[in-house]
Amino acid sequence: MKYAIGIDLGGTDIKAGIINTNGKILFTKSISTDALSGSEKVILNIKKLIAECLEFSKKEKIKISGIGLGSPGLVDDQKGIIIGGAINISEWKNIRLANILKKEFKLNTYLDNDVNMVVLGEYFFGAGKNTTNCVCITLGTGIGGGIIIDKKLYRGSFGFAGEIGHISIIYEGLKCNCGGIGCLEAYAGKNAFIEKAKMAIKKGFATSILKAVENDLTKITPKIICDEARNGDHLSKMIVQDIARYIGAALASVINILNPEIIIIGGGISHAGDLLLDPIKDSIKKFALDLSIKNLKIVQAKLGNNAGIFGSCAKVFSKK
Amino acid sequence: MKYAIGIDLGGTDIKAGIINTNGKILFTKSISTDALSGSEKVILNIKKLIAECLEFSKKEKIKISGIGLGSPGLVDDQKGIIIGGAINISEWKNIRLANILKKEFKLNTYLDNDVNMVVLGEYFFGAGKNTTNCVCITLGTGIGGGIIIDKKLYRGSFGFAGEIGHISIIYEGLKCNCGGIGCLEAYAGKNAFIEKAKMAIKKGFATSILKAVENDLTKITPKIICDEARNGDHLSKMIVQDIARYIGAALASVINILNPEIIIIGGGISHAGDLLLDPIKDSIKKFALDLSIKNLKIVQAKLGNNAGIFGSCAKVFSKK
Repeated sequence: MKYAIGIDLGGTDIKAGIINTNGKILFTKSISTDALSGSEKVILNIKKLIAECLEFSKKEKIKISGIGLGSPGLVDDQKGIIIGGAINISEWKNIRLANILKKEFKLNTYLDNDVNMVVLGEYFFGAGKNTTNCVCITLGTGIGGGIIIDKKLYRGSFGFAGEIGHISIIYEGLKCNCGGIGCLEAYAGKNAFIEKAKMAIKKGFATSILKAVENDLTKITPKIICDEARNGDHLSKMIVQDIARYIGAALASVINILNPEIIIIGGGISHAGDLLLDPIKDSIKKFALDLSIKNLKIVQAKLGNNAGIFGSCAKVFSKK
Repeated sequence: MKYAIGIDLGGTDIKAGIINTNGKILFTKSISTDALSGSEKVILNIKKLIAECLEFSKKEKIKISGIGLGSPGLVDDQKGIIIGGAINISEWKNIRLANILKKEFKLNTYLDNDVNMVVLGEYFFGAGKNTTNCVCITLGTGIGGGIIIDKKLYRGSFGFAGEIGHISIIYEGLKCNCGGIGCLEAYAGKNAFIEKAKMAIKKGFATSILKAVENDLTKITPKIICDEARNGDHLSKMIVQDIARYIGAALASVINILNPEIIIIGGGISHAGDLLLDPIKDSIKKFALDLSIKNLKIVQAKLGNNAGIFGSCAKVFSKK
């Protein structure tokens, strides 16, 4: 049995955990990122959290094999360098973070992009266990994803593969934040949820969303819409279904291209469960080739908020 | 140096060739498929063609390493069986063709789908040489494709990967022959070309297409439209550009998902060259992520009609 420390760095919190090769969590802890206090403070917080993990491991006489860390933005996973692009953490660029942590703790340290870590987590310890070709989509503020091909994370020729949120589903559609046109993210990202609700409310549709946000439309979130949909609110259900259909259309293209054996739906709103999954499946059936979906499984992610920690540990284990 | 016999089985002709490991063609021959005379006759024609290849090789004192054959429809490449689905060749199903040919000629024989063979040909001997991750699209009556990942043809978990023609580009778009909605093939396959031209002509647009088909609209083909576009016909240029933009949008999604280093544009209408390639490139730029296209090459296929023969031989060489 081996043990690793996994760190999931986010714009709000840093989460850490110790996990063994069987996928058992032995310890977790999370602290605030202090994301706006600059990179030195963030590194200090990461170190503090790792120190606590090591303290626990010492007490329990567990030998830690290494540290894995998932960071938002661009990460050079080979060299263990934070390149940049994480808009929620200030000064978070050009940091040889793997080296810094290795020096401090005398443990092999591996970095990767946070979405990649989630995908690795679900693949090695969650819904993707024991599959060969697997696609994972993460539904959140943005829409990300990752592809496992032949039991390995597929990164593409230059490291940017898996951008499922930027599949164009409407040729003359909405302009996306990425600069593209008609991207799934523009139709099913956080803003799409919120805008759909706001528009309907302004048009006078009756909905329990209003009560949930105490008539303050700026408080609407995808989570609230999903919650109200689960409570039976008609408008919320319509919104979730509309968005699920867009997601299904994009996934159908991924399926027609990659013919995987499993699609894993993860990220914040995936907790809506069948409410979201059922219309996604219907939409996939409508858009994908019959042969390509014949043996396909479409499942909800299993590891929830801990997927990043699991993946960071999986990364360590896969290096041994 | 090794030598192989490659066979490209089509609905009209069977093409055969002898190619060496350097990619040199030593012999080619093609005969009519007799596609409507039943599978026995087609097999007989294949055997006849192989016999001619072997005669040549005997005369030239060349030792043949094996036979590769690309067939339309579903092929079990592991077992060397024609499964079915080739609508243009009658009775073309449930045939243990690799065994039949192996028995007859005492040579190892490998089958695959014809599009896969084209992709293998372009990858090993054509525009994809020396790359690692490569996407090939074939533009013809339908739109097919193939994906090379980590220097190998990627087939997906059940053998149906690479269906680039069935990427949905318009969410509420045209119904496709495959049953899907808004598929690229519905917007850029052979019929899309022809329908666009017919509609414009019926609306009264001036075009040299009319002269080329002697006012018989049933004679319009994508090739004629591409030829007239190259001759400067305004309507034909518009049609090629429109279709190229659709192709670019679908390829952008492939690029955002797979981040390959090269996209190869092949198939009949790819001979239109830059006329087609330039608007495809423009469209890809518009739809794809900047990071994903930074080092991407978009090139025309190199092997033309011989790609299938090259690929069938590549398949033999890769088995040794």
